[in-house]
Amino acid sequence: MKLATLKDGSRDGRLVVVRRDLSSYTDAKAIAPSLQAALDRWTEAEPKLRELANRLEKGDAPAQPFDPKQAHSPLPRAYEWVDGSAFLNHVRLVRKARNAEVPPTLETDPLVYQGGSGVLLAPTEDIPLRNPEWGLDFESEVAVILGDTPVGTTAAQAAPFIKLVLLANDVTLRSLIPTELAKQFGFFTSKPATAFSPVACTPDELGSAWKDGRLNLPLRTTYNGQVVGEPSAGPEMHFSFFDLIAHLAKTRSYTAGTILGSGTISNAERSKGISCLAERRTIETIETGKPQTPFMKVGDTVAIEMFGPDGASLFGRIEQRVVAG
Amino acid sequence: MKLATLKDGSRDGRLVVVRRDLSSYTDAKAIAPSLQAALDRWTEAEPKLRELANRLEKGDAPAQPFDPKQAHSPLPRAYEWVDGSAFLNHVRLVRKARNAEVPPTLETDPLVYQGGSGVLLAPTEDIPLRNPEWGLDFESEVAVILGDTPVGTTAAQAAPFIKLVLLANDVTLRSLIPTELAKQFGFFTSKPATAFSPVACTPDELGSAWKDGRLNLPLRTTYNGQVVGEPSAGPEMHFSFFDLIAHLAKTRSYTAGTILGSGTISNAERSKGISCLAERRTIETIETGKPQTPFMKVGDTVAIEMFGPDGASLFGRIEQRVVAG
Repeated sequence: MKLATLKDGSRDGRLVVVRRDLSSYTDAKAIAPSLQAALDRWTEAEPKLRELANRLEKGDAPAQPFDPKQAHSPLPRAYEWVDGSAFLNHVRLVRKARNAEVPPTLETDPLVYQGGSGVLLAPTEDIPLRNPEWGLDFESEVAVILGDTPVGTTAAQAAPFIKLVLLANDVTLRSLIPTELAKQFGFFTSKPATAFSPVACTPDELGSAWKDGRLNLPLRTTYNGQVVGEPSAGPEMHFSFFDLIAHLAKTRSYTAGTILGSGTISNAERSKGISCLAERRTIETIETGKPQTPFMKVGDTVAIEMFGPDGASLFGRIEQRVVAG
Repeated sequence: MKLATLKDGSRDGRLVVVRRDLSSYTDAKAIAPSLQAALDRWTEAEPKLRELANRLEKGDAPAQPFDPKQAHSPLPRAYEWVDGSAFLNHVRLVRKARNAEVPPTLETDPLVYQGGSGVLLAPTEDIPLRNPEWGLDFESEVAVILGDTPVGTTAAQAAPFIKLVLLANDVTLRSLIPTELAKQFGFFTSKPATAFSPVACTPDELGSAWKDGRLNLPLRTTYNGQVVGEPSAGPEMHFSFFDLIAHLAKTRSYTAGTILGSGTISNAERSKGISCLAERRTIETIETGKPQTPFMKVGDTVAIEMFGPDGASLFGRIEQRVVAG
């Protein structure tokens, strides 16, 4: 089942079910007005939404063309946005870029940060840049939306709490990071609003690519019209989503609608390319002594998309342009 | 105007207006089902809620006794919980306790962290402690609830975005902090769910004590039945709520219902006492070479309350017991 949220002028948008091929949608408001409302009573809403999705596939439900430009992020605002950093190749590269140590527990204790979640960007919404010196960067990620997840949930128990899977652009202001991290309180101002893919899928939509809390498919990032990366989102995710959930649940519970990110997808094999400019700049520094690639500037575009084995787009396309903010 | 949220089995509870003396309440569901719903259309809801509050004061509205035990946190879940650390005496003491440097920008660049906001504790809800080694501590704070606050809001523009004022117990697991901060991503697991006061007040309820984005009244903390602190929440708040809002809004916008905390209230004058055990332990270390006071254990209680010049409780009482979690 694939779900999306259409802009309708309300804060939380209107829930729709999208056809597997993303060609059309049908309204789901009779089941739940918004995705958050559906997640709030998922046990009751999910079978009804699945039944509607089946009817849509068969042509038995009223359908309209699905236009990603009309889509908001599946959750236009969320109660929590927690982002991991589970691809250790990314952690090692970006820390090298800012001359920071990797933590001694890198391979045993997951890195996660609490992001702002009250205002999220739509998948095709402009990224406002208020100051070109802030070092704007994209970060292409996989994310999951959780149901109510109790404190103490273990990795072995985590699978059923993952209700939906989607993509994220975890927009970052690189030049603001060192000052923020020096204060020891996290990224705060260096993480503006994040954008999510037009469509969120239940894990079963991903077939055998979804396995053990990892999504074993490449994630394509296109920067200014050029494919810059297509690393696999699977095997090198050192901590799976199940591991990340166990880490999150160590000291507290989570409400339905919590979004959890994988961190920037990154493979050690350099020919797989990049999912953020910071990695390319670090590689340039290693190879030539200094970074060559500038950060994003006004007018730049970034697109993030994932395709199934049949070549079909799974979540639709995040496609954003940088504008003066 | 004073507002509260009563437990009714729903996720977001039921909005009520509370009498100024906290003796009784009247139902506000005809205006908005929940506080979040009221904040979502505050321009329309606020005058209606004020009119109802006026009728309640005059005995012209159906009233029932207000029992804080029936109250949830004013927002049982919030879209964001951002906590400052604006009392520099606190920052200096707790960093000394963990042999950490204060940042060089301490007096010019506010410290804030993004907290978990999807599951918040009710004002009289037990604090679960899963591991007694985690160093459970309370932190008594003042907080504000924001309306929609745009990116770029300056301190001079911030006042109208503060819709409500309340108290918080920003529960902390001290022993988990060093490992989390060493990873540079913030407090994450060291900050379990926060509790808030039974009642949230509009700033005008605070009279002249609310001035320039600071609440100039003492905040009383009672630990195991003994008053341990009554520091002023006003003059030593180095960054006012207006300053904190300007810092938050540097790179993104905030949705209505965002909660912003002051950080632990702390005065340099030691006779004013403490708002967290970590400060007492640091003072003990300075004075005797090592901490004497243990962190909270199962069965301990903490109460946090603020009184107006007339001695009346302004926000009701946060009153929590530690239980094995």
